[in-house]
Amino acid sequence: MENKINEAIKEIQRGTAEIIDIEAITKLIKRYFETGENFYVKAGFDPTAPDIHLGHTVLIQKLATFQKFGAIVQFLIGDFTATIGDPTGKSETRKVLSESQVLANAETYKEQVFKILDPNKTQVVFNSTWLKELGTGGLITLASNLTVARMLERDDFSKRYSSNTPIAVSEFLYPLLQGYDSIALNSDVELGGTDQKFNLLMGRTLQKAYNCKKQQAVLMMPILEGLDGVQKMSKSLGNYIGVTDEPFDMFGKVLSISDELMWRYFELLSDKTLKEIEDIKNGVNNGTLHPKKIKEELAAEIVDRFHGTGAGLAAKEEFEKVFAKKDIPTDIEEFTFDTEIWICQALVDTKLVESTSQARRDIKSNAVSINQEKISDDKLNLYPGEYIIQKGKKSFAKVIVR
Amino acid sequence: MENKINEAIKEIQRGTAEIIDIEAITKLIKRYFETGENFYVKAGFDPTAPDIHLGHTVLIQKLATFQKFGAIVQFLIGDFTATIGDPTGKSETRKVLSESQVLANAETYKEQVFKILDPNKTQVVFNSTWLKELGTGGLITLASNLTVARMLERDDFSKRYSSNTPIAVSEFLYPLLQGYDSIALNSDVELGGTDQKFNLLMGRTLQKAYNCKKQQAVLMMPILEGLDGVQKMSKSLGNYIGVTDEPFDMFGKVLSISDELMWRYFELLSDKTLKEIEDIKNGVNNGTLHPKKIKEELAAEIVDRFHGTGAGLAAKEEFEKVFAKKDIPTDIEEFTFDTEIWICQALVDTKLVESTSQARRDIKSNAVSINQEKISDDKLNLYPGEYIIQKGKKSFAKVIVR
Repeated sequence: MENKINEAIKEIQRGTAEIIDIEAITKLIKRYFETGENFYVKAGFDPTAPDIHLGHTVLIQKLATFQKFGAIVQFLIGDFTATIGDPTGKSETRKVLSESQVLANAETYKEQVFKILDPNKTQVVFNSTWLKELGTGGLITLASNLTVARMLERDDFSKRYSSNTPIAVSEFLYPLLQGYDSIALNSDVELGGTDQKFNLLMGRTLQKAYNCKKQQAVLMMPILEGLDGVQKMSKSLGNYIGVTDEPFDMFGKVLSISDELMWRYFELLSDKTLKEIEDIKNGVNNGTLHPKKIKEELAAEIVDRFHGTGAGLAAKEEFEKVFAKKDIPTDIEEFTFDTEIWICQALVDTKLVESTSQARRDIKSNAVSINQEKISDDKLNLYPGEYIIQKGKKSFAKVIVR
Repeated sequence: MENKINEAIKEIQRGTAEIIDIEAITKLIKRYFETGENFYVKAGFDPTAPDIHLGHTVLIQKLATFQKFGAIVQFLIGDFTATIGDPTGKSETRKVLSESQVLANAETYKEQVFKILDPNKTQVVFNSTWLKELGTGGLITLASNLTVARMLERDDFSKRYSSNTPIAVSEFLYPLLQGYDSIALNSDVELGGTDQKFNLLMGRTLQKAYNCKKQQAVLMMPILEGLDGVQKMSKSLGNYIGVTDEPFDMFGKVLSISDELMWRYFELLSDKTLKEIEDIKNGVNNGTLHPKKIKEELAAEIVDRFHGTGAGLAAKEEFEKVFAKKDIPTDIEEFTFDTEIWICQALVDTKLVESTSQARRDIKSNAVSINQEKISDDKLNLYPGEYIIQKGKKSFAKVIVR
């Protein structure tokens, strides 16, 4: 039993950035093993963007791990603020959603997350349910539980305040609402990204202020880097792998990541145990395993997860067929640059041409492509990301801009 | 007509501490004179304390002046926060009120203020009516209209913030609610004390943010000093004249104020015109009028206002009768001290005794009284206030401690 609990805790801790009150989590898991009693793990999701990418699944997979050890997941759709819209009117991305849009988005979420989560151990909940009811008076009472000074300690608020960037008073209310969600849901644990630390702790603070029997533990997952290995994976940056991506694209995108980033994805996204990953790493280090093969295995595992067992292998075969046709060698020399670089300079530095003037002429004569697409603009800059540059039929280079 | 408007504006301006947008007020009064169209003047009152004193009537008399020039007074009872209580839980004075208590207090208010205000031109309104309806979402939207930095400019907030005295986030919401009241009531003007400037301007700011057709003008009255002439008149300081005080007490209290304070009370509380007051002042200065007689006139005017015509004269006669019996001379020499003073020192300084040791002996032998009451404690200090000190049967002094 002792052993079983220790194993569970290890799995829970895997890849986490920070856990607050691991003792409480240990107790909950122990109680589940001993009595079968469930506990409640909350995570909040944005109702405006039901297109989940792998950046989100890091958290969702951790929720799935909790489900193995007795957790009922409170999959919270934060529809309340979406239905009132963004009152600051500054952000174009935040739209007012109708109730039916929220429900439609919730259905999309379910389709996607139930490929990872156990639907029988998941409650999909909407915070408008209790936040509407809170009312003017309830919100004022809620706001009486925190001081202005404490709010201004939040990293982004403190930076904005000291740089005279306006903070609307309403922005002080959102963390309080998120905390109130934990009271309404009586959550035992809340999961979120490291960027959510302040808001996650709010639930703990408010549960205490409201004399709840529980004070939620908090578990923070790191922010997953996107395909570029530098910036946070995000749809708007275009460096993401969506869970609804076609198998072929998904496979290709995983294959495009750097070897370094691959280990990070293994830890955060693979179902392989830490021991198995360690063994693979050793194999790569002593030359018995080829990193590209390993990357293909990871890609296949991820494709399988979202498209069913066997889809990964099929994607791999299709991928090889296409690239064989296009005559792209499987091994291309890699060049890394620390800042953005002018395409002509990149062509010189990767030894594809001898001079930037030669580069210009080659571009003008349609001899240069980036990621399989011919380019004609010789003023182009390469921004952070990864690119396959091709000159003529046979010369290739992989360029990574950090 | 021009003249009539000018006269009205002069009456409106009398005794005010500050007016924001006198042009708007002038237009409203002009329109009333020309077309008979009314306008709306708001003032807020605390529902927990329906016992009005003269400090409040300064404002209420100004409202009455507005009524003469076309205003419908919006007598706002701020019951909303009273019914949710003080969520900070720090202030003992703020109690949760039931709806029936609020209504009972409103009745008491009416009894008192309709001695000054015209009931036919007064709407008694309760802000819970619209603030309850505002709801969680409405309050968030409201709070999006002001920045944290702007809130922290409010004098008391800025002081507390820089001295690390906690400010609850909810305290940022109260000024917003007060401002929202002006939107809900569509007020043209709001009256308040100078200490309310920030909150009064909030109505103006929010009416603009909500694209209202009006932006309220703001008129601030000074804070009336209490009987001591130093501190704000307040029930808790005991330096007040309540409008429900008995005629005898009311008369006596007015009579006890210093000559200097008397002129202030004339300006802010008397119905005499500025011209009449000027004439009286000249009379006192050139010795044709005695200040005590003038003070009695003021006292009688105030008693008449709250107890009906004739009550002032009756009070004066009763007062004289009682004091004649007690053998207190009507003219007592006055001594003023700038800080608190030890009773024995006061007895020396007022020439009632020759030394502090003599003073001690006199106190021990029951020969000294303050305000008609024998004292026995020779360590007593006299704090800011006014006192009649008596030694033996015939020696009197009036002591004013500032």
